Amino acid sequence: MSRVNIKVLADQLQLSVSTISKALRDSYEISDETKKKVLELATRLNYVPNPYASSLRKKKSKTIAVVLPEVADNFFSLAINGIQSVAESKGYHVLIYLSHEKFANEKTILEDCQSGRVDGVLISISSETNTADHINKLQANNIPVVFFDREQEGIETARVTTNDFDCGFLAAKHLLQKGCRKPAFFSISQSLPICLNREKGFKTALRTAGIPEQDQQIIYCTDNDGLYKQVKTILQGNQRPDGLIASVEKIVTPVYLASYELNIRIPNDLKVIAFSTLDTAPILNPPLTTITQPAFEIGKAAATLLFKGIEKSSFDLTRERVIIPSVLIERQSTM
Amino acid sequence: MSRVNIKVLADQLQLSVSTISKALRDSYEISDETKKKVLELATRLNYVPNPYASSLRKKKSKTIAVVLPEVADNFFSLAINGIQSVAESKGYHVLIYLSHEKFANEKTILEDCQSGRVDGVLISISSETNTADHINKLQANNIPVVFFDREQEGIETARVTTNDFDCGFLAAKHLLQKGCRKPAFFSISQSLPICLNREKGFKTALRTAGIPEQDQQIIYCTDNDGLYKQVKTILQGNQRPDGLIASVEKIVTPVYLASYELNIRIPNDLKVIAFSTLDTAPILNPPLTTITQPAFEIGKAAATLLFKGIEKSSFDLTRERVIIPSVLIERQSTM
Repeated sequence: MSRVNIKVLADQLQLSVSTISKALRDSYEISDETKKKVLELATRLNYVPNPYASSLRKKKSKTIAVVLPEVADNFFSLAINGIQSVAESKGYHVLIYLSHEKFANEKTILEDCQSGRVDGVLISISSETNTADHINKLQANNIPVVFFDREQEGIETARVTTNDFDCGFLAAKHLLQKGCRKPAFFSISQSLPICLNREKGFKTALRTAGIPEQDQQIIYCTDNDGLYKQVKTILQGNQRPDGLIASVEKIVTPVYLASYELNIRIPNDLKVIAFSTLDTAPILNPPLTTITQPAFEIGKAAATLLFKGIEKSSFDLTRERVIIPSVLIERQSTM
Repeated sequence: MSRVNIKVLADQLQLSVSTISKALRDSYEISDETKKKVLELATRLNYVPNPYASSLRKKKSKTIAVVLPEVADNFFSLAINGIQSVAESKGYHVLIYLSHEKFANEKTILEDCQSGRVDGVLISISSETNTADHINKLQANNIPVVFFDREQEGIETARVTTNDFDCGFLAAKHLLQKGCRKPAFFSISQSLPICLNREKGFKTALRTAGIPEQDQQIIYCTDNDGLYKQVKTILQGNQRPDGLIASVEKIVTPVYLASYELNIRIPNDLKVIAFSTLDTAPILNPPLTTITQPAFEIGKAAATLLFKGIEKSSFDLTRERVIIPSVLIERQSTM
């Protein structure tokens, strides 16, 4: 079956390709009579526009890219749902790319995004990323970029985050109020602003409570595969914390399993609080106290800003900062 | 800066556009001397192929679509990782679409996929889907389709699943061996083959154990938002089951929460087993017995088959059936 394209329509109606194209786009240059003829034939021949030809003409791919570290984290799953809810209403496609927490992957992905494949990029950077060149290049190619959750400082563009410093402070204060004297902060990065801001909040709370710098334990969990082993080693050491803040969700299961293994009772011997949107938090043993991030809303707000940037080139993304607060939900793991 | 395209190269070398294009693709029709001239000029002028123009010529978008009901389920997150691992090695982009369990969304998505945007489609259908026309249309447009996990019967193409019937049988047998007399099967669809096959396995095990048809409880949980309420009503009723198979992961949290609320002790009063790849299964209260599906491997196998179909049009996808078995992991929820 040969494909019905604009040329076929033009030949049959003895009109130019340009006239057909304008008629299909409902241009004011074309008479209503001609438009009617074109539409009738297009419908009869079951004409479907070719998106690539169409994007060459309009320079719009009707696609946005979402660049994420991973999808096996509830936060990102929920954020994707928020992004999709906006993209669908705009008739846009969403291309989801995973960096798997590697800077090299992220760089290749953004290079791919430069050549007209997408009209805009939403990005939550990898835990390895500590440079901005690859993002600057996108912007130099007039592709708007909006950060959500994991941003990169030093780049002038919109960002949507939660109140990370306040939450780090709040989580630490909560542990101190529950009687912890040696709380530790488990991070996954020494460069990601979200981790650093949460860490700063944690340190400020401890300093305010008179806990000296050398007793403020920050532990970096950078080896995904060795997470359980690393957590177990720390819980066996003589610096064992009596309270623990997991800066990301994936630290929770190793912490619980290692505690079971070592007969460390949560919350009696170790209080645990996690930045998490885990659906199963209330049915864990014991139920987990969480700082629950507004993941869906963060995705939605970021996509809304990106479309403003795509639709109106005069819209100044650099001035936009949206902060959507998280909520502390207390459960047995810190009682 | 005006963009260097094939036409610019052709003009400068006084060759046809078609010759330049063939030379760049290293065609046997073009002499080595001409190829050398073209490549030298292309390099000097910093020529970058335009992906859309390129996909119009080659009819390859270098993109595959993955159509899923949702991403907030660990099974699909892990399957996406398996798919990405293959796509990356082939230099392909992955376009992820979510149907949100709605047939209407799925239909629109597949219509979008028809017009050259993607070279192939991996699909796990929505729980509402019970017709095949929208998928047949894709195939009629020469776009290969491979099912993974949730397939649609009556369509001749490759499918990668787990051993659903056997697992339904195994789960029911496990509950019976642990002393259940009134086990129930919680399903999310009356039409999805994966649910029906698991249900058939469940029924066969009960029949084999001499439990009459009228005592074989099948419960359909189709209202996502009302799941907790529905589960609670069933656990309060006088037909209350003493064992429960959750056919999908999202049923687990409502079941546990309703049991806590109603003082139903798991496993003493109610044994629970779930089809699930939940990372937190071993730290739930109580730890959850699971039928763990090989999600990553299913995604990987499905993508591998799809690329065979894309790369070699003579490859017969209709004969391919891959079944990767799941594993029962016993934990306290059924002890």
